[in-house]
Amino acid sequence: MGNQRQNDWKSKIHEVIYGTHTPAGKLFDIALLIVIVYSVIIVMLESVPRIDQKYHDFLNVSEWIVTILFTIEYILRIICIKTPKKYIFSFFGVIDFISTIPKYLSVIIGGSQYMTAFRALRLLRIFRILKLVRFIGESNNLLRALKASRTKIFVFVFFVLILSVMLGTIMYLVEGPEHGFNSIPHSVYWTIVTLTTVGYGDISPETGLGQFIATIIMIVGYGVIAVPTGIVSAEYVTDRSRRKGKKVKERTCPECSTIILKEDAHYCRVCGFRLKDE
Amino acid sequence: MGNQRQNDWKSKIHEVIYGTHTPAGKLFDIALLIVIVYSVIIVMLESVPRIDQKYHDFLNVSEWIVTILFTIEYILRIICIKTPKKYIFSFFGVIDFISTIPKYLSVIIGGSQYMTAFRALRLLRIFRILKLVRFIGESNNLLRALKASRTKIFVFVFFVLILSVMLGTIMYLVEGPEHGFNSIPHSVYWTIVTLTTVGYGDISPETGLGQFIATIIMIVGYGVIAVPTGIVSAEYVTDRSRRKGKKVKERTCPECSTIILKEDAHYCRVCGFRLKDE
Amino acid sequence: MGNQRQNDWKSKIHEVIYGTHTPAGKLFDIALLIVIVYSVIIVMLESVPRIDQKYHDFLNVSEWIVTILFTIEYILRIICIKTPKKYIFSFFGVIDFISTIPKYLSVIIGGSQYMTAFRALRLLRIFRILKLVRFIGESNNLLRALKASRTKIFVFVFFVLILSVMLGTIMYLVEGPEHGFNSIPHSVYWTIVTLTTVGYGDISPETGLGQFIATIIMIVGYGVIAVPTGIVSAEYVTDRSRRKGKKVKERTCPECSTIILKEDAHYCRVCGFRLKDE
Amino acid sequence: MGNQRQNDWKSKIHEVIYGTHTPAGKLFDIALLIVIVYSVIIVMLESVPRIDQKYHDFLNVSEWIVTILFTIEYILRIICIKTPKKYIFSFFGVIDFISTIPKYLSVIIGGSQYMTAFRALRLLRIFRILKLVRFIGESNNLLRALKASRTKIFVFVFFVLILSVMLGTIMYLVEGPEHGFNSIPHSVYWTIVTLTTVGYGDISPETGLGQFIATIIMIVGYGVIAVPTGIVSAEYVTDRSRRKGKKVKERTCPECSTIILKEDAHYCRVCGFRLKDE
Repeated sequence: MGNQRQNDWKSKIHEVIYGTHTPAGKLFDIALLIVIVYSVIIVMLESVPRIDQKYHDFLNVSEWIVTILFTIEYILRIICIKTPKKYIFSFFGVIDFISTIPKYLSVIIGGSQYMTAFRALRLLRIFRILKLVRFIGESNNLLRALKASRTKIFVFVFFVLILSVMLGTIMYLVEGPEHGFNSIPHSVYWTIVTLTTVGYGDISPETGLGQFIATIIMIVGYGVIAVPTGIVSAEYVTDRSRRKGKKVKERTCPECSTIILKEDAHYCRVCGFRLKDE
Repeated sequence: MGNQRQNDWKSKIHEVIYGTHTPAGKLFDIALLIVIVYSVIIVMLESVPRIDQKYHDFLNVSEWIVTILFTIEYILRIICIKTPKKYIFSFFGVIDFISTIPKYLSVIIGGSQYMTAFRALRLLRIFRILKLVRFIGESNNLLRALKASRTKIFVFVFFVLILSVMLGTIMYLVEGPEHGFNSIPHSVYWTIVTLTTVGYGDISPETGLGQFIATIIMIVGYGVIAVPTGIVSAEYVTDRSRRKGKKVKERTCPECSTIILKEDAHYCRVCGFRLKDE
Repeated sequence: MGNQRQNDWKSKIHEVIYGTHTPAGKLFDIALLIVIVYSVIIVMLESVPRIDQKYHDFLNVSEWIVTILFTIEYILRIICIKTPKKYIFSFFGVIDFISTIPKYLSVIIGGSQYMTAFRALRLLRIFRILKLVRFIGESNNLLRALKASRTKIFVFVFFVLILSVMLGTIMYLVEGPEHGFNSIPHSVYWTIVTLTTVGYGDISPETGLGQFIATIIMIVGYGVIAVPTGIVSAEYVTDRSRRKGKKVKERTCPECSTIILKEDAHYCRVCGFRLKDE
Repeated sequence: MGNQRQNDWKSKIHEVIYGTHTPAGKLFDIALLIVIVYSVIIVMLESVPRIDQKYHDFLNVSEWIVTILFTIEYILRIICIKTPKKYIFSFFGVIDFISTIPKYLSVIIGGSQYMTAFRALRLLRIFRILKLVRFIGESNNLLRALKASRTKIFVFVFFVLILSVMLGTIMYLVEGPEHGFNSIPHSVYWTIVTLTTVGYGDISPETGLGQFIATIIMIVGYGVIAVPTGIVSAEYVTDRSRRKGKKVKERTCPECSTIILKEDAHYCRVCGFRLKDE
């Protein structure tokens, strides 16, 4: 009986934490969302030296409160679920753990000189923001379009990489270390910066030939940028029309249950049954 | 009777100011367009120190004339409309007010030392240019396509932001303040500059690992740029074909339910039934 | 009779210069193409101080030869055409004139000190390259797609300009002349550099707020870049399918000449004539 | 008989080297892939001065081993193929040769002072990576879409080049050598950097007029970027739907010529005729 009461208590918490349809569940999700964004902002502000100097104590206390809240949430999630293992080793279970532990680690391992190194670990807590993905939902067909064009995008990226290595090598030979192209990897980095039209300008060709080759790389990049766009667009349009196609008023043959899509069909194409005109 | 005469006078002005179909209304709109562009150019030139020194008086007088013209226009708009409240609190009513008042404020609050700060307020007058939107009309289906893909673009921007925060944190850990990545917010700023292929080059990775990660970010950004393009393209194509589809009046053959799309059809193309002319 | 012989001579030259279908006409066009490219390269090289110093005489003589060739061509074009006026004031007639005259002007108006200024005029000869457009032909439907989306692109560019003026003003107020945003026009220039993802980095935001706003501008630009691409893509797809639609095997009703597109039509939809099955 | 045994031996090696379907052939291809990537990484690392100083001997020995492996592979490829000429002068045959020979050349031609120049030749070995293309296969319709839009992209690139030469000349006249626009070729380089939205910022307009023209160039580039994307997208969508169309086996009803697309149709949907099962 005490066991059942405990189960009641657990299932209630489960409903609040994991559920999203009850008012309490919704409230919890929104509160969690706010706390996550707040904690991300705090971690970001803490890295700004000027702000950290002024508000160090406030930021530190804030972080401790958030960490404790996250710890309680993490423990509750484990307690109220039937198979804790499944949660702990799930994608979000691991993220929840990773975003809670660094703050504790920074305390246990003392010594101010090591601390600075371990503070970096705390920054990993930013991954908690991945929790936000939960709120996006899977209703969007964006990911489907990206998934469908996965192979093509891989081939494309692979091709861009080969192109970059070759063009990078040529530019290294043409410009050389005296114009900032220190090594082939550095030169490949420059090529990708150029091909993707980012163009920092930290390195830029200085010889006439180098600028000429750079010009060709840019125009190639300009043409090449069309390819992934074309792929995703095509995939997306196809996906839309396919799904829209399904919406078309369907009839089913009363004799053999075949789905009749053609609107001008008089006879079932499978059994030859005469369809009633609608 | 005096009331009626007044109403006649009001309705005439209303026709000129708000109307766009009468010759006078058209002339007014074009004149207003020119004055707005002129005033925007003056505000812009006034901010150029070299030009302001030379032509200060001319620019100042010009601005006063424009401001007075706008004030008269604003008052006439309020007078000649039936429900002034509706105009005053409308989008363009607020913009008209905001683009007129700063010049007056700069006079009332004297003292040359404060003036410099308040001159900035006058720059808000630039928002008057929003009035130009009126001339674009709502006939374009660009906004419709953008509106239809609103949710997807929001999800996309949200995803880009999460990605930027995480990549920015990683780059902060890798490069650190000694290579210009002063703080996480600064690092996130750099990530967005890179992801969007803007690439100022005010900050750029200097370590090998940093450049390697930057390379990945760029290629991701390169692939990611395809997504909003694909969405808007698809939405735009769909919108076009949907509207085109709507324009065609469909009829169905009363004999065999075939859908008749051709507007010049007198007979059903499937069963030869004579269609009634509509 | 002498008149007729002259006409024969004229019509032959006309065939070579204006015609593109005879072997002689083709040869002339290719030779002209090569001379144009050569002259453009010479003008470009002449502007490089190091090359000009070394090969000044060669470049100068080359240019004179090209100029004389172009002059002869220009005169022949006028002589052998029926209505010289039509050619002279045509697009290419004006370009032909503009690309020939600066070299002569540089001689007539002596004085080495003025020469340097007039040499600039000679650079306009580069416009001769526009002649190359002739070889592209009008068979491509690129221009048609661009033409069809002309209005939408104009509205788009107009909207981008309004956005740039407003965002530029805000950035001027936020960053100010002390961070390189010297004036509103300069600030608008920066905004367009950012919105179009060019990102020179000659000016870049330095305050936190400025970088935050810049981030928003970039993401807006990222989303906005999709719009013209979407427009042109849609227009281009539509144009293709429209033209392809025409290729579909058409039948004509033998009774009333109506074009029958539907492949499953048994009866002419206009006159009810029973179509023969093919 | 000894000849036949030799042939057996040859055909087995041929199966391993050229074949990709047997387990041994697959293993060989994967091993080759790894060795190629390894050798490319070594060539790249060797160009980094800091790494070369530390691990010079290791890198040198590694390269010799890889070179010898590639030599053996090259010789085996020639031996076990029926018509060695065909391989040697094929695309990959030439690449295989080019990626093996530079290392040997660096030894034969002694003298440390010449070595530095010839080391560059060794870098051409990077082209071996092109072998990787083999693994991509021709199943992707990316290349087909690119091939189909070849002419249009050429016209486009040609047009961009003409535009760049003209805009570059104008910018040279406006900005001049005193603002970094040293010569017309340099100015054309800047124009392409801007048009393609790369924007290094190594040169950037400094005069007001120059910045105004730059602004126009950017907006043009912004609009122009849509064109290749539109072309490739359209070509890609068309290619998809065409190939999809081809896959569906069409039948026509012998009774009424209706096109039967559904593969499971036993009866014509228009006249009810029993279709023969294929």
